[in-house]
Amino acid sequence: MGTYIMNNHFPAYVLYGPGTVARIEWDREKKRVLIITDRGLLKTGNIKRVHKVFPHADVYGEIVGEPTSEMVDAAVEYGRRGRYDLVIGIGGGSALDTAKIVAALLKGKESVTAVFGKDRLQPRQTRLGLIPTTAGTGSEASINSIIKDSTDGIKKSVISREMIPDWVVLDAELTMSLPAPITASTGMDALCHCIESALSLNANDFSVIYSYHGMKLLSKNIEQAVAEGTNLEARGAMLLGSFLGGLAITRAGTTAVHALSYPLGKRNIPHGVANGMLLPWILDYNLPACQDKMMELVPYLDSKKPLAAAEDIVALTMELVKTLPVPKTLAEVGIGEECLSELAAEAMEQKRLLVNNPRSMDQEAVETIYRKLLF
Amino acid sequence: MGTYIMNNHFPAYVLYGPGTVARIEWDREKKRVLIITDRGLLKTGNIKRVHKVFPHADVYGEIVGEPTSEMVDAAVEYGRRGRYDLVIGIGGGSALDTAKIVAALLKGKESVTAVFGKDRLQPRQTRLGLIPTTAGTGSEASINSIIKDSTDGIKKSVISREMIPDWVVLDAELTMSLPAPITASTGMDALCHCIESALSLNANDFSVIYSYHGMKLLSKNIEQAVAEGTNLEARGAMLLGSFLGGLAITRAGTTAVHALSYPLGKRNIPHGVANGMLLPWILDYNLPACQDKMMELVPYLDSKKPLAAAEDIVALTMELVKTLPVPKTLAEVGIGEECLSELAAEAMEQKRLLVNNPRSMDQEAVETIYRKLLF
Repeated sequence: MGTYIMNNHFPAYVLYGPGTVARIEWDREKKRVLIITDRGLLKTGNIKRVHKVFPHADVYGEIVGEPTSEMVDAAVEYGRRGRYDLVIGIGGGSALDTAKIVAALLKGKESVTAVFGKDRLQPRQTRLGLIPTTAGTGSEASINSIIKDSTDGIKKSVISREMIPDWVVLDAELTMSLPAPITASTGMDALCHCIESALSLNANDFSVIYSYHGMKLLSKNIEQAVAEGTNLEARGAMLLGSFLGGLAITRAGTTAVHALSYPLGKRNIPHGVANGMLLPWILDYNLPACQDKMMELVPYLDSKKPLAAAEDIVALTMELVKTLPVPKTLAEVGIGEECLSELAAEAMEQKRLLVNNPRSMDQEAVETIYRKLLF
Repeated sequence: MGTYIMNNHFPAYVLYGPGTVARIEWDREKKRVLIITDRGLLKTGNIKRVHKVFPHADVYGEIVGEPTSEMVDAAVEYGRRGRYDLVIGIGGGSALDTAKIVAALLKGKESVTAVFGKDRLQPRQTRLGLIPTTAGTGSEASINSIIKDSTDGIKKSVISREMIPDWVVLDAELTMSLPAPITASTGMDALCHCIESALSLNANDFSVIYSYHGMKLLSKNIEQAVAEGTNLEARGAMLLGSFLGGLAITRAGTTAVHALSYPLGKRNIPHGVANGMLLPWILDYNLPACQDKMMELVPYLDSKKPLAAAEDIVALTMELVKTLPVPKTLAEVGIGEECLSELAAEAMEQKRLLVNNPRSMDQEAVETIYRKLLF
């Protein structure tokens, strides 16, 4: 038992259930509405569903890949010209992360690079609604936006409670057409949020309730959601689990998995793929430092074999990654031995995350972990 | 999986840990501060601790027993004369329930009887901090105040998000001197909040995370907190469990235990005693309607024997009540067979709670349950 403050970092309203996009209860009276989404989603039924509720909304669909500061500034500029009073983000983490920044900066004059860091935002004056179409980042629940700084190519965070939306819609029907590999990799990202936050040195008696419950939902449903994409029950559980993962990392942070994942992301490995690949090896490395804490996860992890020791949890995550349709080695994603030391140096820069890791890491340890991922 | 809205009914800040009263970070600049407490607490060290942080605060300590509308109106009147801009409630549920109303009505002209019911309050204009000294009601986390209407003697609720405080302090040191029987009965109240809300027909995938986790903390620690009152670890877990119980009932409501408890409260049986006495029998009655839902509680209930069937959970609660230093029968609290039909008629009036109960109840069923409690 420690001493800590629980902040009320929670969206004002969350609407959950299949088909709920059609039943959004908020901001329908708003005249100047901007939908922000990624290019891939632009022509899908998902955008049409939101348009049905907000028929006069403009759509900005220029988000491609993971957002850069240039991309985000362009979106903010678009938003300023339209003087929107409601921003709706719909899509994966990139669209939501961008929408969060647009809503926060729309009434101001700053560029996103000016607000990188913690608590640099003025109180948000534009309403914000978020609708995830992947069960992964939990961006709809987190106080972060992760943006690549176009000036130096480094991923940076905007961290502020002004990132928390006024409302969120968790409608599993929007995730039904997600291909199996993306379901798998985004699901692994969400599972990492829950497991990492539970083991984080920054975890507390309150944050773990979101970590544990999210873990339970994700662990129990990820294989089914991947194998049978139209299973609404499994899809819904994944979406809620991912939301809980966002709440959990907002309270307890992520750890070395995410720290080592960012350098891979810089080399265009999808975030969830990198996290999934890293998770078992980081758990393995952390074993000596948090056996007891790992055993607390047992009731929340779905396993055919009994999990009698912390090692069994490592094995379970190894097994899970093996089963899922995601790359499992650096070789598969085109990264060779010659990159390891550079990767490790870059990972060491993620101090904000590494301080949360239950076992401390030097550059050598990091490089050793990357080496295990090679083949 | 259903469809539902999660509301952000959560205090803005919660400070948790032993000794944290001394470290309150909020509202220290406020000039006109009113501490509301019950008469029993007036001369204790607990009030002094709050006074150290707010040395100029006035203390209103006229709360005796469970609050009546007359008592609350007197407190509101006192508050209006002092034009306070911060109300601090410290004590058990009665003091906190009163403080919530005082803060909500202080800048207005209404009496409490005018705001009985749901969503009848104007936006609160006075800051509110709550410091529980029992681990039981979870009032610091709930949107309810329960007040006995002095005109008809019936307990009524003020239900509104304006009841949610700006900050809460969960400092287990304040509960250390609580006598064992009160630790037991208030703890049973908190445990009822968690179990009832988990089985409530109004429960959802999100509300249960508070129910489950609160249940886990309370079930694991109640016997130790009763047996060894100065065990800070157990006291802290109880306080957090009670807070989670308050969050849980705010989202999912209570059920027949609370419905049948109110008529006993009217006859001066302490609320927690009545709930504890009723819990096993209500679970027993509900068995045919929610076996599966009850089995979901198993991982969160502390038991020496394995809980292989829902019946075992009933037996576990029977056993627990037997062990604790609380009255177990109506005979022990001076209620005889001649009262049963009147009690049942009064319980049937608690429609708001009975609709949440997993198995429907008519007056005969209610009377049968009371009869089982006789000896």
